[in-house]
Amino acid sequence: MKVQYRKVTPQLLSAFREIVGKEYVLADAEQTAAYAHDHTEDLIYYPEVVLKPSQTEEIAQILTLCNKELIPVTVRGAGTGLSGGALPVFGGVLLSMERFNKILDIDEHNFQATVEPGVINEAFQQVVQAKGLFYPPDPASKGSCFLGGNLAHSSGGPRALKYGTTRDYVLNMEVVLANGEIIWTGANTLKYATGYNLTHLMIGSEGTLAVITKIVFKLLPLPKHNLLMFVTFADTETACSAVAKVFRAGYTPSCCEFMEREGLMLSAAMHTISFDLQQEAGACLLIEVDGNEMEQLHKEAEQIAEVLYTTGCIDVLLADSAEQKEFFWKLRRSIGEAVKTRSVYKEEDTVVPRAELPVLMKGLKELEAKYGFKSVSYGHAGDGNLHINILKESLTDEQWNGMINEAIREIFALCVKLKGTISGEHGIGLVQKNFMDIPLTEVHFKLMKGIKQVFDPNQILNPGKIIPDVLS
Amino acid sequence: MKVQYRKVTPQLLSAFREIVGKEYVLADAEQTAAYAHDHTEDLIYYPEVVLKPSQTEEIAQILTLCNKELIPVTVRGAGTGLSGGALPVFGGVLLSMERFNKILDIDEHNFQATVEPGVINEAFQQVVQAKGLFYPPDPASKGSCFLGGNLAHSSGGPRALKYGTTRDYVLNMEVVLANGEIIWTGANTLKYATGYNLTHLMIGSEGTLAVITKIVFKLLPLPKHNLLMFVTFADTETACSAVAKVFRAGYTPSCCEFMEREGLMLSAAMHTISFDLQQEAGACLLIEVDGNEMEQLHKEAEQIAEVLYTTGCIDVLLADSAEQKEFFWKLRRSIGEAVKTRSVYKEEDTVVPRAELPVLMKGLKELEAKYGFKSVSYGHAGDGNLHINILKESLTDEQWNGMINEAIREIFALCVKLKGTISGEHGIGLVQKNFMDIPLTEVHFKLMKGIKQVFDPNQILNPGKIIPDVLS
Repeated sequence: MKVQYRKVTPQLLSAFREIVGKEYVLADAEQTAAYAHDHTEDLIYYPEVVLKPSQTEEIAQILTLCNKELIPVTVRGAGTGLSGGALPVFGGVLLSMERFNKILDIDEHNFQATVEPGVINEAFQQVVQAKGLFYPPDPASKGSCFLGGNLAHSSGGPRALKYGTTRDYVLNMEVVLANGEIIWTGANTLKYATGYNLTHLMIGSEGTLAVITKIVFKLLPLPKHNLLMFVTFADTETACSAVAKVFRAGYTPSCCEFMEREGLMLSAAMHTISFDLQQEAGACLLIEVDGNEMEQLHKEAEQIAEVLYTTGCIDVLLADSAEQKEFFWKLRRSIGEAVKTRSVYKEEDTVVPRAELPVLMKGLKELEAKYGFKSVSYGHAGDGNLHINILKESLTDEQWNGMINEAIREIFALCVKLKGTISGEHGIGLVQKNFMDIPLTEVHFKLMKGIKQVFDPNQILNPGKIIPDVLS
Repeated sequence: MKVQYRKVTPQLLSAFREIVGKEYVLADAEQTAAYAHDHTEDLIYYPEVVLKPSQTEEIAQILTLCNKELIPVTVRGAGTGLSGGALPVFGGVLLSMERFNKILDIDEHNFQATVEPGVINEAFQQVVQAKGLFYPPDPASKGSCFLGGNLAHSSGGPRALKYGTTRDYVLNMEVVLANGEIIWTGANTLKYATGYNLTHLMIGSEGTLAVITKIVFKLLPLPKHNLLMFVTFADTETACSAVAKVFRAGYTPSCCEFMEREGLMLSAAMHTISFDLQQEAGACLLIEVDGNEMEQLHKEAEQIAEVLYTTGCIDVLLADSAEQKEFFWKLRRSIGEAVKTRSVYKEEDTVVPRAELPVLMKGLKELEAKYGFKSVSYGHAGDGNLHINILKESLTDEQWNGMINEAIREIFALCVKLKGTISGEHGIGLVQKNFMDIPLTEVHFKLMKGIKQVFDPNQILNPGKIIPDVLS
């Protein structure tokens, strides 16, 4: 269903100023420019107006109005998304959640916290940590990304391996529906079997079903210690093969990250860190174990190292000081940004069953040769979640906009063949929607469009996302 | 929307015989009697016909036909449900999944298994355990309940405390939609951010959205050891209060079960076990820790015992032999059945944030006094999930069908006030649907009915469940 959206009129601007206050309505291009892009490639879409509400009731009023007037509304967290989910492709209202930045309650007895969606992931982690509590999800962008955005994509991060993704920590949320109605989606309980699970339906829906205004998270007791191993391998396939073997030996590390040599060196270069990686090392794993007893962790790390040596790794380095650990994590977390310094790129968030990673890597190398592109890969090897960064470098614009999409289709088709899918944690948003026919069928789209119609019959919430253009 | 369902005609019976084979179509009352009840109270509803397909394609043909002819279809697992979810309240077809009993694949490298929904929970656990793998969800009925039924209610069990419920282990499933279309809901991956999460929407939908025909589960490495502590308390409130304190001290046991004295003694009596419980013990906890190092577990058990003694427990008994452990678990698992031997009863699956359990227990005792009923409680204290068994005993039928429902409304209202809900793991099904207005609002029902309409526009799948009568 194509909707004929209307434009934001001066009358609507006045109404918005009434609702959120004059200073929180930005309509000039120089004010809205910062909201016209996220971290996805080099894409730019200007909203007609940016609104910065701070109360649920304000959002209810905004949506009621936009729903009546057919104005598209795109919700934005910190703008760190990698699939263009926060880009206002139809203009309209950009709803910035930056003023929803309060941690409302930390319930130490129930191991729960209630927060607004504009709280920064790492800030939240630090606050709960100070109380001996633990919020595991840790996307690479944790220093800037918002919890609400994490929820919209069910973001993961290195610790998802042992602790699960954002989905596994959401108990309940307050949302505003497209027509301005406000509901809580569930209850603040660890178990819930009370009708269709609206909480889980909302998670990963990328701002297309409702606007999240409060979140109740489950917390864990904070593990007291961790140890990190930096493990080098001759090539990517050997590194990827080692991952499944560690698990098969009975170990569940808290993280198991994969990096190609090139990504690591780009990251080191960006930070002007001198990093003496063995010449023969083509790829490496960063493996963390955590727990309450240091002695036990050392034992576990030794046992894992033994397994790793049987897989043909070059070397296992134990990083046990805080500085050493931070050194390796900094390199790992910065790869995405570092790759950007080298070239325009497209990042694909491929995911397959863990033991299929070597097959995916092999297929990727074959496709590089076939299409003549270069990629840098890194990601969460323990989860089978590989971020493939395809570099533009010397490719022509024509190749970049044409041939490369064919190559991506082949990469995604391989993922699906391996029982994987085209996004593990970055979401579909704008840039992956036209690949959605690879993992899904028309029956899926019919169901998804039906669900969308139930929540947002006028299609005002984040239009132009998830569903392929030919079907929307 | 009230649907005028049609009756199963002789022509339809012939068609069903063509599809599944003559011997798998049961239409005589003496054949269908076994399918007219589940484990919910003393409720009986006869289906018009029982079908026992064994292939996805057969189910697709049955649904295509029933959808066209407006025949209600109720899917049944092992019939161990406690909310009447498998009762064919509108007659029609009872689709028994008992022949979908194959474990199709155990993928040791990817820690995944693909099963049919009619596999018995414990049988599956044992098969994966023999390979050093672990499927944690363990409902009390694990010896007979089907995995498909577990999924339909997102069943928990004692180990949900540390390991989560069924929901946390489902990666993907094959389902047949009401119109006969067959889809896989997701991918076989640990992370998934590829559009609306149909897998999670299906979990807990109680057979009202689609028929599950295959399930891909995630598995864990099997913990090598566990230790069990049987802890006695003077009263229920002290026992419930102790639970939150154990967690606050930084421990996550693998199980933390609560039993009132009476439930325990009824269970012992049913098994004609002589059990010498201290006279002053009014309630007890069963606390399990698990892991790979026995030494470490003994240390942890000692530390937990120290915490428990500060909470005013009477005694902590360590059960470390397999026989002792089985003794206590047998008592715990049989309480539900044992309560039945005493009286007709209604079981309420209340759930609140963990630290609110003492408040719920106190409120329950006050309501017992106010309404003059007796209850026996037990359940998953670590999850805040308390099964309250209200006994009919000497209550009149009039009181049982009238006044007791008012008492239940008050119990549920207290749960909701404590940020809990009316079902943690048993589901809503038939017997709880008319209490759904307590946790939810008309906005929720509008959304749920909308979702139902998308998946099953003719309302043939398990009608008369989840949504309150006044709204359906």
